[in-house]
Amino acid sequence: MNHDMGFVRQRLGELQDLCYTLNLLEWDMEVLMPSKGAAGRGRCISTVSALHHRLQTEPRYEEALQRLADDGSLFGDDALIVREAQYDCRRAACLPEDFVIEQTEAHTHGFNVWRDARDRNDFAAFRPCLEKNVELARRAAEYYGYDESPYDALLENFERGMTAGRLRTMFGPLAESLKELVVQVEGTETPEFPDGHWPVESQQVFERRVMQDMGYDFEAGRVDIAPHPFCTMFDLQDVRITTRYDESAPLSSLYTVMHESGHALYDAGFDSAQARTPLATAPSLGIHECNSRMWENLVGRSRAFWHHYLPVLQETFPRRLDHFSVDDVFRLVNRVQPSLIRVDADECTYNLHVVIRFELELAMIEGTLSVSDLPDAWKTKYREYLGIDVPDDRDGCMQDVHWASGLLGYFPTYTLGNIYAAEVYAKFRDETPGWDDDLRHGRLTTLLEWLRPRIHRVGRRKQAAEIVQNIIGREPAADALLMHLRARHLPA
Amino acid sequence: MNHDMGFVRQRLGELQDLCYTLNLLEWDMEVLMPSKGAAGRGRCISTVSALHHRLQTEPRYEEALQRLADDGSLFGDDALIVREAQYDCRRAACLPEDFVIEQTEAHTHGFNVWRDARDRNDFAAFRPCLEKNVELARRAAEYYGYDESPYDALLENFERGMTAGRLRTMFGPLAESLKELVVQVEGTETPEFPDGHWPVESQQVFERRVMQDMGYDFEAGRVDIAPHPFCTMFDLQDVRITTRYDESAPLSSLYTVMHESGHALYDAGFDSAQARTPLATAPSLGIHECNSRMWENLVGRSRAFWHHYLPVLQETFPRRLDHFSVDDVFRLVNRVQPSLIRVDADECTYNLHVVIRFELELAMIEGTLSVSDLPDAWKTKYREYLGIDVPDDRDGCMQDVHWASGLLGYFPTYTLGNIYAAEVYAKFRDETPGWDDDLRHGRLTTLLEWLRPRIHRVGRRKQAAEIVQNIIGREPAADALLMHLRARHLPA
Repeated sequence: MNHDMGFVRQRLGELQDLCYTLNLLEWDMEVLMPSKGAAGRGRCISTVSALHHRLQTEPRYEEALQRLADDGSLFGDDALIVREAQYDCRRAACLPEDFVIEQTEAHTHGFNVWRDARDRNDFAAFRPCLEKNVELARRAAEYYGYDESPYDALLENFERGMTAGRLRTMFGPLAESLKELVVQVEGTETPEFPDGHWPVESQQVFERRVMQDMGYDFEAGRVDIAPHPFCTMFDLQDVRITTRYDESAPLSSLYTVMHESGHALYDAGFDSAQARTPLATAPSLGIHECNSRMWENLVGRSRAFWHHYLPVLQETFPRRLDHFSVDDVFRLVNRVQPSLIRVDADECTYNLHVVIRFELELAMIEGTLSVSDLPDAWKTKYREYLGIDVPDDRDGCMQDVHWASGLLGYFPTYTLGNIYAAEVYAKFRDETPGWDDDLRHGRLTTLLEWLRPRIHRVGRRKQAAEIVQNIIGREPAADALLMHLRARHLPA
Repeated sequence: MNHDMGFVRQRLGELQDLCYTLNLLEWDMEVLMPSKGAAGRGRCISTVSALHHRLQTEPRYEEALQRLADDGSLFGDDALIVREAQYDCRRAACLPEDFVIEQTEAHTHGFNVWRDARDRNDFAAFRPCLEKNVELARRAAEYYGYDESPYDALLENFERGMTAGRLRTMFGPLAESLKELVVQVEGTETPEFPDGHWPVESQQVFERRVMQDMGYDFEAGRVDIAPHPFCTMFDLQDVRITTRYDESAPLSSLYTVMHESGHALYDAGFDSAQARTPLATAPSLGIHECNSRMWENLVGRSRAFWHHYLPVLQETFPRRLDHFSVDDVFRLVNRVQPSLIRVDADECTYNLHVVIRFELELAMIEGTLSVSDLPDAWKTKYREYLGIDVPDDRDGCMQDVHWASGLLGYFPTYTLGNIYAAEVYAKFRDETPGWDDDLRHGRLTTLLEWLRPRIHRVGRRKQAAEIVQNIIGREPAADALLMHLRARHLPA
């Protein structure tokens, strides 16, 4: 192997190991860490982030990449690895190391302050952290550079190539159509699960069965409890998810688990031959959400899914759900009702929660909304888009972890994921005539096997929109999502 | 602050953060990691170890330390920090980075192979790993350099300043006296706990009470289950222990928990004003064991301890222990009986297990015992020192994790810890006339408060033997340990 290429691969391996290490430091912080460990953990995360940045931007690494790019003799995956490594290297080089440390510390601090402040419904306590995070995001945008909006420079970190302008064009008409759809279907009478105690242990037995059917490997991952569900990885063979339980509802964690398992199956499905290179990572968060939302909503909330799993659920909770039909559960898990909390929202209103956040963070980044005005702006938007009153900030603008952790420009990827998922799943169904029958018998891996070569193993060899385009044969658009929602929620 | 000193403090902080990060990678590997994650975890550990080594040995850091040392204007803690940092830097510089990576990978691999091989009682499968670890240890000794035995160079990593020669002088007579003592007291009739099921949850309630009385802060640590109990730290305010349970014995985990909590209280008690410097670390493992063994044996197996805790235990397991007296429990937890497994051994035979390991690893490192002859040599020593037959390698030379993880030169620190503990505890009792009464009432923090300024907050400002000497007023010797054991175990 070319000497430079050997060095680049070694460096990429080290960088990936440091990312996995950061993931573990953060996973433990959210899942297990005792409260007084927060300050020390913040320092460890800062140190490892700074070292990652130092390795990523070291001149001799940059030079080796440049020689390989200039040389032009590389082909196949090696050429793609150099292309992606150079992209990462240039992005990282935009930010000075001191700034990276300042940012990392502010984000860890923001997370810890937010956690307490949210519990106490104390926006005033959280405000300085958010102001700091917005200011850092704006400075980062200046370091990165941008053509139209500083927001574009941030979005690039999560959805490469996407711009605020394109999002506005997509999201504007989508939001209008969704508002109409919600008005048409909201408040439809639906059944309710009986009141009572639904033990966590039984919920876990049921979920575990679904996860196994999806293809999740419990020898290469685990499920833990955390206040904010997420998926993370420490290796292609150690991909973990977290969830949370409410013992007053039998499916309190099912859709969280299906969602996070969708992420996990993607991460575990990268090309192991290119492990520890950028090719074994995702090109964007939107494409990541495409996987999680497909499993959660398109699969998990379908009638055919419940045809198979209602009997399993009935067995898990003997005698308590005997009077439920597949149609009952289908209607129950698809109830449309404007509500306060994004992560609990139904499939239709969900995207309106996202559009609200997109518009607000865009305004904060572009400087047309100050952080102190955020709580009021939040309330106005919820009235406008969802027709509901927000009683306090805990269940208002402080409900999500993202801004507290400095993730500005992240929210739109949720709706992009829904759009991609609707497009890809429609194509999958077209190509897979036996799917409905498979789904009705719990043979869920049919979908997994179809996704593996088309999305998972591709990794970062292609960009997100290109991957979807290759699958569906044209540019992805919001129509497929609307079609799916209308088909599912409007009376035939 | 002097510019060099600022740089040195920053670098020391980074190095300490990387140590804590490594601790977390290893903690998770032993406590939670799914089995298939092992290879990836090994790579992360290697990468972080290599970066630690690179930062530790960077020329500009070495030069800054040298300027500070030459300058001579530093005083107090700054001077001590530079002294200790320079010591670490020189030790690390002995080993090339490639060697550090090779060593780290071999140790992680060894650990994972050993875990399976031990379960299957398959020494042949484990042998190549142990051969590799012995070879690496011998190469490390050559890199470090030594005067008399290559073993001295390894021992230095765990018990600075100690030599194989001094250990032989101390351990030889101790072993002879212990053999005699064991013959005198073994097989004394003792009570037994009743057969039955002793639920983990109840054992945990009891232990937690003891830990809290000892002064352990559950907001700055946690207890998890692992096959091999240990204590680790990720910050002065995040010090965790692990234990294991056997539901057929009510005290199956108590002494493990007291032992590991002893370690944890030491780690949590370092001087927080010098956090993230070598001064907030331990000077040796022997002094670490001094703490853990003092709590486990000298406190936890005393009559006065059970005076207070037997009623608590009886409350934890209602009606099942009502017929037990303090004397019964005292005799039960102090039964002397030669046995196979070091970690389950009583206070008297324990040190014979250690002496066996010391002699065997010394012979392997000095090249007078080959790894393939280890199983037989193990059996011979067990017959000679403990008078028992070893039926297989699982419960023989494969029972401990140390050699699998490349920890050669580590075992003697256990007995040194017992020696230090006996010396220090005798002095503490002399100085604290109210202790017996405190102990009889569960006021355990009297001991903690006494240890804080004398050992915990000292950190690495002094070396282990010096710390003990400052407390007792002369050089530590094995006599105090023998005196304690005779007083406790021989009929008055």
